[in-house]
Amino acid sequence: MDQDGMDPKDWQAFRRQAHRMLEASLDQLEQVRDRPWKPVPESVQQGYAIRGEGGDVVDRITRDVLPYHGGNIHPRFWGWVQGSGLASDLIAGMAGAAINANVGGRDHGAVYMERAVVDWTRTKMGMPEQAGGVLTAGTSQATVIAFQAARVRAMAEVRKTGQQGTRLTAYAGQGVHNATRKAMELLGIGADNLRLVPLMDGQMDGGALARMVAEDRAAGAVPFLMVGTAGSVDLGLFDDLNMLADLASEQNLWLHVDGAFGAWTRIAEDPWYSLTDGLGRADSIALDFHKWMYVGYDCAIALIRNVADQRAAFAARPAYLEGADRGLAGGDPWYCDYGIDLSRGNRAIKVWTALEMHGEAAFAAAITDNCRMAAYMADRVTAAPQMAMGAQVVSNVCVFTARADLEAAAQSALNADIAQTLQETGEAVFSTTRVDGVVMLRAAITNHRTRAADVEAALAAVADLAAR
Amino acid sequence: MDQDGMDPKDWQAFRRQAHRMLEASLDQLEQVRDRPWKPVPESVQQGYAIRGEGGDVVDRITRDVLPYHGGNIHPRFWGWVQGSGLASDLIAGMAGAAINANVGGRDHGAVYMERAVVDWTRTKMGMPEQAGGVLTAGTSQATVIAFQAARVRAMAEVRKTGQQGTRLTAYAGQGVHNATRKAMELLGIGADNLRLVPLMDGQMDGGALARMVAEDRAAGAVPFLMVGTAGSVDLGLFDDLNMLADLASEQNLWLHVDGAFGAWTRIAEDPWYSLTDGLGRADSIALDFHKWMYVGYDCAIALIRNVADQRAAFAARPAYLEGADRGLAGGDPWYCDYGIDLSRGNRAIKVWTALEMHGEAAFAAAITDNCRMAAYMADRVTAAPQMAMGAQVVSNVCVFTARADLEAAAQSALNADIAQTLQETGEAVFSTTRVDGVVMLRAAITNHRTRAADVEAALAAVADLAAR
Repeated sequence: MDQDGMDPKDWQAFRRQAHRMLEASLDQLEQVRDRPWKPVPESVQQGYAIRGEGGDVVDRITRDVLPYHGGNIHPRFWGWVQGSGLASDLIAGMAGAAINANVGGRDHGAVYMERAVVDWTRTKMGMPEQAGGVLTAGTSQATVIAFQAARVRAMAEVRKTGQQGTRLTAYAGQGVHNATRKAMELLGIGADNLRLVPLMDGQMDGGALARMVAEDRAAGAVPFLMVGTAGSVDLGLFDDLNMLADLASEQNLWLHVDGAFGAWTRIAEDPWYSLTDGLGRADSIALDFHKWMYVGYDCAIALIRNVADQRAAFAARPAYLEGADRGLAGGDPWYCDYGIDLSRGNRAIKVWTALEMHGEAAFAAAITDNCRMAAYMADRVTAAPQMAMGAQVVSNVCVFTARADLEAAAQSALNADIAQTLQETGEAVFSTTRVDGVVMLRAAITNHRTRAADVEAALAAVADLAAR
Repeated sequence: MDQDGMDPKDWQAFRRQAHRMLEASLDQLEQVRDRPWKPVPESVQQGYAIRGEGGDVVDRITRDVLPYHGGNIHPRFWGWVQGSGLASDLIAGMAGAAINANVGGRDHGAVYMERAVVDWTRTKMGMPEQAGGVLTAGTSQATVIAFQAARVRAMAEVRKTGQQGTRLTAYAGQGVHNATRKAMELLGIGADNLRLVPLMDGQMDGGALARMVAEDRAAGAVPFLMVGTAGSVDLGLFDDLNMLADLASEQNLWLHVDGAFGAWTRIAEDPWYSLTDGLGRADSIALDFHKWMYVGYDCAIALIRNVADQRAAFAARPAYLEGADRGLAGGDPWYCDYGIDLSRGNRAIKVWTALEMHGEAAFAAAITDNCRMAAYMADRVTAAPQMAMGAQVVSNVCVFTARADLEAAAQSALNADIAQTLQETGEAVFSTTRVDGVVMLRAAITNHRTRAADVEAALAAVADLAAR
């Protein structure tokens, strides 16, 4: 190898390349309104094949990568629940690449920054000071971490002995996000041991839950976990978290809350703020930054009420990871003791830069505004002659059908076709879900770029297609 | 909210900020040799606390974040096994922030790019075309995914029923990385059901393994998994992967290979290339890009020989994730069906940009050179009057003691002190490990910036401290 390993031979040339990449990235952000999702041409798909020849990649990325984003950065994207990204991600992306931190442990800046992000989030969610937390890729990962902590609290020896012999059972409302089922599968507890509790007025029915727990106990199972939902994926509904916390305490169950996006109503104005009353009483909360805090993918957090439970579930230090009282091997916590990963990227810098650059008030205003936009969309749907709401808007999710006058099957076909067509024309991105078996259009507004005019334009496009 | 949501009100001002951040990031990379690890002053630690007031963060990041990296970007950093990062990460970081891709699924560029990265890696590792793969945070995550696929192959109903009733057992060589134990714990199989097989000449003893499997079967357990190591964390040793593949086939076990860093000898020159002969016969491989491919944290991959096994372990699509034949909800694979995460960041762009900008040949040369540097370090240690090697160098890991003439306890204290002191002075970063109970200095060279002069300077500094 020559002098500088794989570093650029000509730094001036590389600096020019990098500034060109930055300009192209800035152009993309500034012109995002004119750059909706569009299908990736087959030639571009195949062009991604790795050649491995080396060279200036900036033109290729500008031409073949930037235009083919997933659409979520566009002001009229409301599909699934996806965040829209922030200008601060660009700053964090550069600084993050320059420090290349492995935040699994040891004593360096990124560890302290993650601690600051965990602390801030813990406070906003109303959790006590002894709570622990670790940043994760998403709520799915955070759910796995929380459930393992819950299991270890219920079965102190399970890390050694494994699951066999004890049938644990967990409880969640019908419509709970699939992350809960996948975590039950992964942990070897089994999806059959997740009990789906009926909803009453869109919330888990506490009476039914208590009866199911009693039945399972009578049948020899060990109920250990209750999963509350703060923002259901289909309809944006919220469980009564205070009621669940009372029940969890009575029944000696771990209360986990899936707050993937909905937990962020904690920084919104009322009436949305009150949706998450009681959240801080949970034993664990899983939530994303990349959805309703708009931060770049991926970025989430697992918060655990008692950090001792988190360490009990994950801490382990073989000889090659021994800590030290000084030097680079010092410091505490080592985040590898708080979750699955030993090597961990620097997600905290995205959240930190977002809050410090945009300010907390801007997030509070944007989240509140997204709820208002969902309500506005519902108003316009209700006022439109043939459209109808599929469910009441509670937070930021609006589900509706384009033609309530058609039969179920025809509605399903039409709504599915409208979703696809609007995606392809770039006019708007709705996803679909089923309400009583009917495919409906669904907007989950976690997008700080959405304005009232966007809602109007999208609904006009829906009406146009529905009239054909 | 006003016109542009949270986007900059003054784009020209933001462009200037961003270019300043880029210049500072470029300075950091270009001057990395003069910027070793240093402790984070308490005022800086506390200064990370989130204020949330908004403003220009570039100066603050330049002053309080860039200098306090984890050391791994420096040419004389060889602690643990950490990659050093690449200039291409800066390009990928900007483009990645501009597209903000969620690579959990759907039809957009980042999905095709990840497919290209999986394909390239699969080919290099010698796996067949029907292999599947998914990028993960690290080998720890990839191990969890691989083990779950192995378990589902052994117990088809386990996702529904959970682990109870069947005691699965797994086998790995003594010294196997803790990621294997943690995955056994997380999956509810239990660390007690991980059997540690004695080593013979640094490799798992096949005869002993076969005997242990037979004993476990006789005792009613269900052996399901064998874990080979390609590059052990302590000493950089390699199992005989062809022998293990034969055994796995005879015994009907799933062969997983932990190739976190060592798998990359597949693109090195001989004799290092041959260390991983047989790797492509594994049922699964877990390996990092952020270690010996130098790519920014975090970035790894789980490769599964038969993609059907991977889907069987993870695929699940509730109503709100239904695919479509066209539009944004089209495309296949959806990577959420290949692992734990539903929301997934865009790791592929880091690998893709690295290979396309630096070229594959540069990686091959750097990896080969790192092995040569470890051998060179061993030569210098052996030639030094009081130092002694703790073990033979096989790949890129060199473990030694500064004073072989001292008693064990004094050696341990001295080596630990030297490691800490050199970290604090910024002269070099070794980590430590134990060989026969003695704490020794350990260099794992996964650093494309390391030159012979760095090895010489670091050993001179060790000798200096040892002589005091």
